[in-house]
Amino acid sequence: MGMIGGGLDAFIGAVHRMAAALDGQIELVCGAFSSKPEKSKQAGASLLLNPARVYESFSEMIKKEKALPDDERMDFVSIVTPNHLHFEPAKLALENGFHVVLDKPATFNLLEAKQLAEIVSATGKYLCLTHTYTGYPMIKEARQQIRSGKFGIIRKVFVEYPQGWLSTFLEGGNQKQASWRTDPAKSGIAGAMGDIGTHAFNLAEYVTGLQIVKICADVKAIVPGRRLYDDGAALLNFNTGASCVLMATQVAAVEENSIKIRVYGEKGGLEWQQEDANTLLVKWIDRPAEIWRAGSAYISDVAKKHCRIPAGHPEGYLEAFANLYRNFAFCLQAALQGKKPEWDVYDFPGIEEGVRGMLFIEKIIESSRSNHKWIDFSL
Amino acid sequence: MGMIGGGLDAFIGAVHRMAAALDGQIELVCGAFSSKPEKSKQAGASLLLNPARVYESFSEMIKKEKALPDDERMDFVSIVTPNHLHFEPAKLALENGFHVVLDKPATFNLLEAKQLAEIVSATGKYLCLTHTYTGYPMIKEARQQIRSGKFGIIRKVFVEYPQGWLSTFLEGGNQKQASWRTDPAKSGIAGAMGDIGTHAFNLAEYVTGLQIVKICADVKAIVPGRRLYDDGAALLNFNTGASCVLMATQVAAVEENSIKIRVYGEKGGLEWQQEDANTLLVKWIDRPAEIWRAGSAYISDVAKKHCRIPAGHPEGYLEAFANLYRNFAFCLQAALQGKKPEWDVYDFPGIEEGVRGMLFIEKIIESSRSNHKWIDFSL
Amino acid sequence: MGMIGGGLDAFIGAVHRMAAALDGQIELVCGAFSSKPEKSKQAGASLLLNPARVYESFSEMIKKEKALPDDERMDFVSIVTPNHLHFEPAKLALENGFHVVLDKPATFNLLEAKQLAEIVSATGKYLCLTHTYTGYPMIKEARQQIRSGKFGIIRKVFVEYPQGWLSTFLEGGNQKQASWRTDPAKSGIAGAMGDIGTHAFNLAEYVTGLQIVKICADVKAIVPGRRLYDDGAALLNFNTGASCVLMATQVAAVEENSIKIRVYGEKGGLEWQQEDANTLLVKWIDRPAEIWRAGSAYISDVAKKHCRIPAGHPEGYLEAFANLYRNFAFCLQAALQGKKPEWDVYDFPGIEEGVRGMLFIEKIIESSRSNHKWIDFSL
Amino acid sequence: MGMIGGGLDAFIGAVHRMAAALDGQIELVCGAFSSKPEKSKQAGASLLLNPARVYESFSEMIKKEKALPDDERMDFVSIVTPNHLHFEPAKLALENGFHVVLDKPATFNLLEAKQLAEIVSATGKYLCLTHTYTGYPMIKEARQQIRSGKFGIIRKVFVEYPQGWLSTFLEGGNQKQASWRTDPAKSGIAGAMGDIGTHAFNLAEYVTGLQIVKICADVKAIVPGRRLYDDGAALLNFNTGASCVLMATQVAAVEENSIKIRVYGEKGGLEWQQEDANTLLVKWIDRPAEIWRAGSAYISDVAKKHCRIPAGHPEGYLEAFANLYRNFAFCLQAALQGKKPEWDVYDFPGIEEGVRGMLFIEKIIESSRSNHKWIDFSL
Repeated sequence: MGMIGGGLDAFIGAVHRMAAALDGQIELVCGAFSSKPEKSKQAGASLLLNPARVYESFSEMIKKEKALPDDERMDFVSIVTPNHLHFEPAKLALENGFHVVLDKPATFNLLEAKQLAEIVSATGKYLCLTHTYTGYPMIKEARQQIRSGKFGIIRKVFVEYPQGWLSTFLEGGNQKQASWRTDPAKSGIAGAMGDIGTHAFNLAEYVTGLQIVKICADVKAIVPGRRLYDDGAALLNFNTGASCVLMATQVAAVEENSIKIRVYGEKGGLEWQQEDANTLLVKWIDRPAEIWRAGSAYISDVAKKHCRIPAGHPEGYLEAFANLYRNFAFCLQAALQGKKPEWDVYDFPGIEEGVRGMLFIEKIIESSRSNHKWIDFSL
Repeated sequence: MGMIGGGLDAFIGAVHRMAAALDGQIELVCGAFSSKPEKSKQAGASLLLNPARVYESFSEMIKKEKALPDDERMDFVSIVTPNHLHFEPAKLALENGFHVVLDKPATFNLLEAKQLAEIVSATGKYLCLTHTYTGYPMIKEARQQIRSGKFGIIRKVFVEYPQGWLSTFLEGGNQKQASWRTDPAKSGIAGAMGDIGTHAFNLAEYVTGLQIVKICADVKAIVPGRRLYDDGAALLNFNTGASCVLMATQVAAVEENSIKIRVYGEKGGLEWQQEDANTLLVKWIDRPAEIWRAGSAYISDVAKKHCRIPAGHPEGYLEAFANLYRNFAFCLQAALQGKKPEWDVYDFPGIEEGVRGMLFIEKIIESSRSNHKWIDFSL
Repeated sequence: MGMIGGGLDAFIGAVHRMAAALDGQIELVCGAFSSKPEKSKQAGASLLLNPARVYESFSEMIKKEKALPDDERMDFVSIVTPNHLHFEPAKLALENGFHVVLDKPATFNLLEAKQLAEIVSATGKYLCLTHTYTGYPMIKEARQQIRSGKFGIIRKVFVEYPQGWLSTFLEGGNQKQASWRTDPAKSGIAGAMGDIGTHAFNLAEYVTGLQIVKICADVKAIVPGRRLYDDGAALLNFNTGASCVLMATQVAAVEENSIKIRVYGEKGGLEWQQEDANTLLVKWIDRPAEIWRAGSAYISDVAKKHCRIPAGHPEGYLEAFANLYRNFAFCLQAALQGKKPEWDVYDFPGIEEGVRGMLFIEKIIESSRSNHKWIDFSL
Repeated sequence: MGMIGGGLDAFIGAVHRMAAALDGQIELVCGAFSSKPEKSKQAGASLLLNPARVYESFSEMIKKEKALPDDERMDFVSIVTPNHLHFEPAKLALENGFHVVLDKPATFNLLEAKQLAEIVSATGKYLCLTHTYTGYPMIKEARQQIRSGKFGIIRKVFVEYPQGWLSTFLEGGNQKQASWRTDPAKSGIAGAMGDIGTHAFNLAEYVTGLQIVKICADVKAIVPGRRLYDDGAALLNFNTGASCVLMATQVAAVEENSIKIRVYGEKGGLEWQQEDANTLLVKWIDRPAEIWRAGSAYISDVAKKHCRIPAGHPEGYLEAFANLYRNFAFCLQAALQGKKPEWDVYDFPGIEEGVRGMLFIEKIIESSRSNHKWIDFSL
């Protein structure tokens, strides 16, 4: 793989590299790590890359890699730049025959996402959008259990993503993450709802298999001086009439990445939170709740195939992230062999989820600015 | 004390009696336990009361007790009937010189609550509304800590009360609790929001010391056949601009009485949930969260005075309930002695909280039926 | 009931009184609250007792109460003095026709306990030893489940009781609890093992229905200056060959009364801890663990009869304590009516458990002083 | 690196490979994955290795790799065979100039471990023993905090490692892990105490910085038919007089790898368990306990350098394992550059810990067979 963005001082680039490396299926062979050539070179050197394949720009990388022999050039690019720099490299890569791994949210705005969806469709290339939380084994298990119908009709979803790291005016200093994530020109219009609310939204749709159709939202910019919303909540309705409450905030002191989902159906429900990621709580209306654990013999085959350690040692965020990369690699391998990817087992989020995520961002803001209670959530 | 309602098959009557008995300050001396005289007598006998003071109706009780000598007649009545039978006995008791303990919500509707407030004011009698959760020691502690200003300006509140016991059409059978609580003629207009949402609302205002001024709500009747809403959520704004998300549902499988509140301020915040009632989690933006425990030497004097056991054995719901009764007893004792009640230490909810609770119920429904996003939350 | 000990500054006396009062079955009618007559009078006054029935000594109380008419005199005494003052009042009470509630450990030493057992047997009176933890509903549930055989043969027990309140030389100051509990002349020979280790021991035997037959123990006096052991652990064997590890310490910083038991059998096991007393974790070798909750519809009838609140509000230590008093009251009522007490449902610990507890204390010390690894645990 | 053992059906081999790959510092270049040449080849192929460097035996590998040019041959071997096959390849590797990563316990018996220590010393090569739990960031933090003296003198340690996977006679079937681990000829004399008790022992000494000097142990073979002990417990004394209780069992239903340590000192203490590996509970005798979290800004520099993700996403077992490999790689890099390894920051367990672990195994068995209560724990 080749990487676009992800220089040495970028948090998410290193995460992508570790996730890609974990299973020994993917090798980082080239990169355009920064818009500053010197920084790109430093990153490449520290990653022990062949200097000839450390590029000054993504366009140079795509052009030169394309010119390499089949068995030498990168198979796909991983794009880990800030949101406003997603669309151009993704477009160029796809149109030049490269598959794409793309950090979420998909693009800077909905329009770009729709265009990107058309490009994916037109080129026939694969795109993986890194909604990491869908890679956790017990999220796979949750989805399988809901699909099985064991809980009956789904009635209610609570999904929340509280963080606390933006509780102060961090962007006033030199904190790079805070700076771009609170800058409307780089992050997009929605702030916390774009950064982490999209994860919560995606998780709710992924786990339940349902789709949001109505929304009533409220966002706030709480920390004085902040240019983007750092807090928000929404009441939502699914296509089945089931209701959902979604909360995302970045000013909740001490909270880390406490994404949590609770789903309730006619006969039972379930609960999962990232801070205890290897546990899925399964609830019943008439008998004791159950503690389902990753790596156990009794979980579904799909969930098992997303565990690396047979017994019960904790697996974490990097392993969930690596599941996305590995599933993407399996997909590309199948494609190379002319086989169909095994979607039912080795799925990963794609541009459809990307478009819906951008729709979420737009609708959150549209609803927040509206005096009408409910607005339709549709393309 | 005398009791109105609370026959042998009523859940909450027994709770009131145990709570009143715990501290040895209050004695049950009479009762009108049921609108059916035979049932009232049975209850009185089983409670070892003097048969002469087991009455056939609340009006008989109030009349006859009033006629007793000062040192013999009951000091106050405890009213534990369904919501539609709160106002009349409360009015009659107050107007005949008796103090009142009243189960929440205060009345059947807002109009009654306002009238009751006027009667309380006019008679100068005391009224205690049993919002039990405010009686927990660590809720007292939470309130003290927020009042102290240690967390800075309060920004955000999440409060939730998920239950699961109405997940099925229980009122189709003989379940007495389910029957009246889902009957609009007995329970009022709001269902879950009236039954448990009011507790969540009260807790949020009590702990923060803030008042709700705007509301955007949505309620649902989820279980087929149900005549009242069994689920709801609301976005709220406090008078300071702080925001709040409130959730209450009675169709969340396995959830018991999982009331939980999280408050976040500029510098830190806190979290409490009834299932771990003796713990208060205190959070900071820049240092480890702390586990504050009931009965510990380091908690505030106010909280200590609501703990019964110096070391750390768990105290529960009955003890919290008993704190309301004991504080009410202290208030009456002070009144008898011509002293001012020590409100700062031994507080309890009263008719003001009752009026606000009924306002909440009305506004929840008004907002749910409105196409406007925000409605004012004011009398 | 009449109380011996339990003056206003005594922790456990107030606990006994609240526990006895909770269910409205028992009334405190007299007391000899202190060896200092003035203190006894003050306590009696504050408890609103008839001054004529507040006595200067337990012998006076037993004598004068005995002289009262049948329907007036106390039915039983509750003895809540330090350990060295258990035997004499218990003996006198029993021999004068009064039943006895006795705080644990039963007596000052094993010899006294054996004598007391003979007196109980000879007089035919009832004695309840307040091993409070056996009164928790989910401990009843645990015992029922193990008795049912669902876990197969029991193999292993871990039981622990860590406290931290004696982490410093508290007895150097005016802390009354610390003073007598660390004084060999008042507390007995074993310190922490006597004070809380006996609870752990009793719980292990009660829950499993097994009996210890071999012991290898080690105790330590950790805090400089302390005259009694404040820490200890033991390896134990049950009569079936199952093994047990028991830990008790009073120098474990921050720990409160964290008594916890884990039992493992062939097919599954269970776990309970007082800090989450309303939960029983049920474990299986081949399927998810289950969270059993007090007050739920699915628990055993015996456990249900030890819950006061049908839904799931937390019940705590006082309620568990009150279960002992209530079951004792049921027993006395049955006796009065010439019926057999319902031991299978409304059990409570008695003098047999008291003798075994004192045996535990003696054996712990004998083993700790021995160079032999294992010593027999038998009378 | 080259790998010895770790064929496709071996659990721990894959773990080592993922751990080595995670940070991009180490590349697997060769292997002798099985004593069956065909199986070794299959493993090598599946790992995309150069077939010329997939060997039929470890001796062939060491010999042929040694003959390769400096910049091509492996730097170290990773030995992941069953215990009885540790010593020979480790000896051969060291004596031929290769550093060694060795799975725990170090060897088959104490004699081998001592010999290996001499070889390490004589050759000057590095050896890393994979006591994985010491690689967790919050274990580093725990050790730093204890070293800082903030808790005063350490008084008491509880360490436990309950597992449940050997609750049945699994070795009667085809379960490869169960077969060798319960076979005295492959696993050594101590069963559970060797397999997981050594981890608990190592963790206790590592975190506290103390050394065990006395032991009183008891082991059992609980499952019928089992040839090795599957359960055990020990009372221990540290060189400072502090006491320790250690428990390890493999027949505790549902328990996974629930290793947990609690340390108590004069002023406070701490608690860590693998199932919540990113949390360290810090306890005080006079103020609320604190929840320290991996990745937070307030933790020590040493702990921070063992976190990969700046915010608070969970890191797990593979990341802890990878910390050992990375620290080992840093050590080798320093050695290559003629620098001193930064032991104070990037430490890893070595042959000294290996010898002490084997001593633990021997002493556990010696004590279990002895009638004397205490035996010395010394070489």
